[in-house]
Amino acid sequence: MNRHVSTLTITLPDWLNARLTAPIRLPSDEDRMRFVIDLARTNIAQGTGGPFAAAVFRSDDGVLVSAGVNSVTRLTNAVLHAEVVALMFAQARVGAYTLRAANTSYDLVTSCEPCAMCLGAILWSGVQRLVCGATRDDAERIGFDEGPVFPESYAYLERRGITVVRQVLRAEAANVLDHYRRSGGVVYNG
Amino acid sequence: MNRHVSTLTITLPDWLNARLTAPIRLPSDEDRMRFVIDLARTNIAQGTGGPFAAAVFRSDDGVLVSAGVNSVTRLTNAVLHAEVVALMFAQARVGAYTLRAANTSYDLVTSCEPCAMCLGAILWSGVQRLVCGATRDDAERIGFDEGPVFPESYAYLERRGITVVRQVLRAEAANVLDHYRRSGGVVYNG
Repeated sequence: MNRHVSTLTITLPDWLNARLTAPIRLPSDEDRMRFVIDLARTNIAQGTGGPFAAAVFRSDDGVLVSAGVNSVTRLTNAVLHAEVVALMFAQARVGAYTLRAANTSYDLVTSCEPCAMCLGAILWSGVQRLVCGATRDDAERIGFDEGPVFPESYAYLERRGITVVRQVLRAEAANVLDHYRRSGGVVYNG
Repeated sequence: MNRHVSTLTITLPDWLNARLTAPIRLPSDEDRMRFVIDLARTNIAQGTGGPFAAAVFRSDDGVLVSAGVNSVTRLTNAVLHAEVVALMFAQARVGAYTLRAANTSYDLVTSCEPCAMCLGAILWSGVQRLVCGATRDDAERIGFDEGPVFPESYAYLERRGITVVRQVLRAEAANVLDHYRRSGGVVYNG
């Protein structure tokens, strides 16, 4: 065992930082999902992590606030699923621990339905809309465990004012997962 | 909105780093829980966050691997519940994204039953034993939402080989929560 660690540094991959230097604005759910799916695909191609990506957008005008890609293997940290990364960076950028603000609403767009941890993180994040691409079944088919997520879990979020939209560009999103399996990608849970 | 953020730095409070420089070894669940409850109490007293703390120990000999305190307000990051902080630092110290190793087993000891996000993080962390102090009811009594955690959620963890032990020093652990409410602490979710 190494010595006591007093600081963790969480970075985005260089290729992702390079894409985020200029402002991005994507008004439709389909355009936002296409952006996120492309990040997931690039995360595989660049060898920087698992086949999942997510991003936070301002609901009304589609301005991109943050993006995240799965970083579990790259940063040896099981918490760093794409949704968690995107939410942490969104909170840092907005400068608040909740995105629930009086005058602005935020969406989390994710290439796959969230696992149990990410579903909880979404609840605490303050986003008011969750848009998903691939389904739990698509993730499980390639060996990823999604954990204890039940219909009641989504109902809980909806009672807290979070709108859930599913299966936006599902086929394209699921294709990325299947590609990951075929390319021999590491399944880091399940 | 600020400019694009490319790096997040996650620190422990200075008072906690100071306590972790020398090795700590606590063989019994009660001793480990007493340690964690004291961290939760100190987190309130020092004004560094919410009334929750957690730590990872090697199961067999009780050597402390990492500790975390709730850091949501201090680091403006809703993901940084005590359990998540302790798990992230444990993975960094061990140098692996999972604590499930062939020859060593790890326990997570937490001052309160985990919220939905932390329960998922515990599943992915590779710890094989979860020891809790205060209960969900104790947390909710002072205004904290624990999110979609159901009996089936714990059953899911247990099927994955995680032993759950509850209500270790519950009264002392719940006292810290009540103290937080009386002192006017911020309730950052729920």
